[in-house]
Amino acid sequence: MSTTQQSFNVSFIGNEPAPGDGNLFRAFAPARHENLADEFANVSPEQADQAVTKAAEAFPIYIKLMPAQRADFLDAIASELEALGDELIERAVLESGLPTGRISGERGRTTGQLRMFANLLREGSWVDARINPAMPDRQPLPRTDLRRMLVPIGPVVVFGASNFPLAFSVAGGDTASALAAGCPVVVKAHPSHPGTSSLVGQAIVVAAQKMGMPDGVFSLLHADNEVAQQLVAHPLVKAVGFTGSRAGGLALLRVAQGRPEPIPVYAEMSAVNPVVVLPGAISQDSGPNSATTVAAGLAASVILGVGQFCTNPGLVFLLDSPNTASFLETVAEKIKASSPATMLNAGICSAYQKGVQQNRIVPGVHVLAEADVDGESSQTQGRPIVLSTTAPIFLSSEFLSEEVFGPSSLIVVCATETELEECLRSLEGQLTATIYATPTELTHADIDWISLLQAKAGRVLFGGFPTGVEVSEAMTHGGPFPATSDSRSTSVGTGAILRFVRPVTFQSFPDELLPSALQDANPLDIWRNVDGKMMK
Amino acid sequence: MSTTQQSFNVSFIGNEPAPGDGNLFRAFAPARHENLADEFANVSPEQADQAVTKAAEAFPIYIKLMPAQRADFLDAIASELEALGDELIERAVLESGLPTGRISGERGRTTGQLRMFANLLREGSWVDARINPAMPDRQPLPRTDLRRMLVPIGPVVVFGASNFPLAFSVAGGDTASALAAGCPVVVKAHPSHPGTSSLVGQAIVVAAQKMGMPDGVFSLLHADNEVAQQLVAHPLVKAVGFTGSRAGGLALLRVAQGRPEPIPVYAEMSAVNPVVVLPGAISQDSGPNSATTVAAGLAASVILGVGQFCTNPGLVFLLDSPNTASFLETVAEKIKASSPATMLNAGICSAYQKGVQQNRIVPGVHVLAEADVDGESSQTQGRPIVLSTTAPIFLSSEFLSEEVFGPSSLIVVCATETELEECLRSLEGQLTATIYATPTELTHADIDWISLLQAKAGRVLFGGFPTGVEVSEAMTHGGPFPATSDSRSTSVGTGAILRFVRPVTFQSFPDELLPSALQDANPLDIWRNVDGKMMK
Repeated sequence: MSTTQQSFNVSFIGNEPAPGDGNLFRAFAPARHENLADEFANVSPEQADQAVTKAAEAFPIYIKLMPAQRADFLDAIASELEALGDELIERAVLESGLPTGRISGERGRTTGQLRMFANLLREGSWVDARINPAMPDRQPLPRTDLRRMLVPIGPVVVFGASNFPLAFSVAGGDTASALAAGCPVVVKAHPSHPGTSSLVGQAIVVAAQKMGMPDGVFSLLHADNEVAQQLVAHPLVKAVGFTGSRAGGLALLRVAQGRPEPIPVYAEMSAVNPVVVLPGAISQDSGPNSATTVAAGLAASVILGVGQFCTNPGLVFLLDSPNTASFLETVAEKIKASSPATMLNAGICSAYQKGVQQNRIVPGVHVLAEADVDGESSQTQGRPIVLSTTAPIFLSSEFLSEEVFGPSSLIVVCATETELEECLRSLEGQLTATIYATPTELTHADIDWISLLQAKAGRVLFGGFPTGVEVSEAMTHGGPFPATSDSRSTSVGTGAILRFVRPVTFQSFPDELLPSALQDANPLDIWRNVDGKMMK
Repeated sequence: MSTTQQSFNVSFIGNEPAPGDGNLFRAFAPARHENLADEFANVSPEQADQAVTKAAEAFPIYIKLMPAQRADFLDAIASELEALGDELIERAVLESGLPTGRISGERGRTTGQLRMFANLLREGSWVDARINPAMPDRQPLPRTDLRRMLVPIGPVVVFGASNFPLAFSVAGGDTASALAAGCPVVVKAHPSHPGTSSLVGQAIVVAAQKMGMPDGVFSLLHADNEVAQQLVAHPLVKAVGFTGSRAGGLALLRVAQGRPEPIPVYAEMSAVNPVVVLPGAISQDSGPNSATTVAAGLAASVILGVGQFCTNPGLVFLLDSPNTASFLETVAEKIKASSPATMLNAGICSAYQKGVQQNRIVPGVHVLAEADVDGESSQTQGRPIVLSTTAPIFLSSEFLSEEVFGPSSLIVVCATETELEECLRSLEGQLTATIYATPTELTHADIDWISLLQAKAGRVLFGGFPTGVEVSEAMTHGGPFPATSDSRSTSVGTGAILRFVRPVTFQSFPDELLPSALQDANPLDIWRNVDGKMMK
């Protein structure tokens, strides 16, 4: 029996495979409508405490490693994930109901972002080193030598998301950025894909052992909600990363707020990702600025991945124009021709159906189009639908602006610019906001549409669609509440590392006692701010 | 009657001088032991709401100004403060009981940091611009153009501190950094120096008008605690800056946590700023590494400014050595020879006396020395005192590790390294931690003292004393809880601006619609991260 087989359904308390002492559960295979055979056991409160304690013990060792050692560890995790081969892909497909191509691409994204953080560490300038050399002769008072850099904050608890079983889960962006920052990580696995989680967890443990990382730098726990809350409340935990529902994120936030010591909670929760369409953008008969092109793009974005992206465009604001009818017709046509597809789990599918039902029965809301064919199983398949309404109906509703997670969207046709402005001002914070317009239309407008959208979102798009989140330096996957609980952060891209650090200043230190990032000779060859000037 | 006289004791709701509709109060002059004649009136809840509403209305205008315009505004505030001349100095001295030289120096610090932020804006690279140009031919998917920068978070409420009536008050670091970031500011004046606050508030209003800033970019409110809490709870407020007591900071934090939308609260609250003395640092008979030199420096730091600094060294851990006695003798001698002096207000003085009394009666705690002469008035004068004890007594106490704000310190003599380690591990988060040692002593130690201190503090000093906080790029004036409510931040130095911003990504934008910091031609000539490389 291979190690993989032995440890398949266990938690890892540091490097130690740990059969849970708590309740048993099984994974569900949404495409098969059945529970899988393997039993998983949640950890007990004591086991969760052991994992956090190990993380806290690993921290002072892990923090002292050179950046290149942490980089090698991240690279090793990526290699171990790849070494799992088809076993990982098959299990993730089984547990998520997502197609093989999508999961395979997601694996590439996951290993890609681990390596991106490894490269960020090797380049090294992200620590924002700042140096004010001593000025012993300054009048009226001399200045002492001051050197500042970002240091890791401490053990981080990460909650895996259901909709990205690899890229936003056990070895996803939260884990990669926290480990890169120098923080040990305790992952609470998502119960929708426990087998996938165990496989990935074991790959990380193998990488940690191969690279000589301190035991406890990583733990993977299958855990119930009570233990999840215990993790957030644990005094040795210094930050939390979460991707999931608004209710789930707010529950963890409340637990964190009950702590004597406040800690950062980065919960990425919900967004409807408004798309605004001004007349100029659909004024042509064909090509990129035609109603048919924009509408077809929209429909494709709504149904992509069965609408199970945080960046799914759930609200469209269309400023009425001669091409409104053509726009709506194209959307309707594309949605009708689409097919229901398997959603991540029964709970998500049921919530989707309830959300759609709640919206479609609002007086004044119309079903613009629904996929012609219903799904094989209404319990696990999401049926694409697009609703439409007017601005007054939208503005008078309590819930039409809320996220319905799945392949649906609501098109609000605004009769006037004033109506459109009022709709946009009424929105809560968003991950993204998209505007379709011609540049001239925007520069000549009475209303500053871009500023209005910027105030609401972490990413503003000029055309295109928000689904598809690039993992890069310039990405922001975050935004004002309730898109996230902390608008100062991004959970995707290199900026994600900044969530898990704090600045520390070293005053009058002998050079040899300074971290290498701050030593006179700049041995890491990083960009540093010296008296306000960037230099190497 | 000059404008200054007219508006002397009013609040400012935006540019509008506003006599408060609430309770009346008078300022207290601690050195005279009497209330001053001028009456101040707190604003009503409605007036506070007007100020926040005006700030929210000013925000979309203020955010669109070029960085150089905001810089000119900050410079103008500095000039207006200087134009107040002796009137400001005299009033601040009167209300704070601090000496003229100290207040005059503090004015220089205040105008200096306003100009520092102005220069930071003109240089411009602080916005952390990141650009990933489009890669239309990338396989398997093209990359769209992504450009990210930091943008202001929205209206900020600032609470002035009592111990720095200029540098941490109405035009202090919180206000300067928030205005620099692009956030309108509503200041809640500290009731210990209402006249100083009104004078400074008016100077800011004059500067705002002269520089054509939008009305509401700044408001100054005299307000009671209830209205203070209302400000923190206001839905249009997006961040809070506070410097003061732990109880005060935690109260505001709880109010913020009760909001539906979480917002950042930067409360700088309390610290005892431990100083660790290892034997090597006091092993010489004279010179910098002698017991007499280090002890004399410590005593001077304890009594500086009547101990009313957040960075006052309230705890000293002395690892026992042949020079312990000589160290203690010198401290005792200097403290005995010191004099009581006027504290900021009667409440602070009374809290100081209670804190000292609580500690000195603990069995096993001894009075090492007290200033020989008692103060003229025990109600307003703080009498320097240094207590001493052993590690076991310190570790068994519930409160000996807590801040006693004033000219006192507790020296804990540790018999062994293990005792010292245990003491340091028991500490809460701190603004600063100082170690006296020889470099060799640290590199050869079994215990990693620097890491231990770094885990507890925002600034670690090798020798010297923590009082005296440089305003510069490399300063961190912050630290783990309860030193601050958010260890990711500094309230002093250029880094303070990062508290009031969030990242926004612009995707596929036409160049002319981008903020200038992100345009292709780099018209602001700032450092930018382009695909991971820093360039201009």
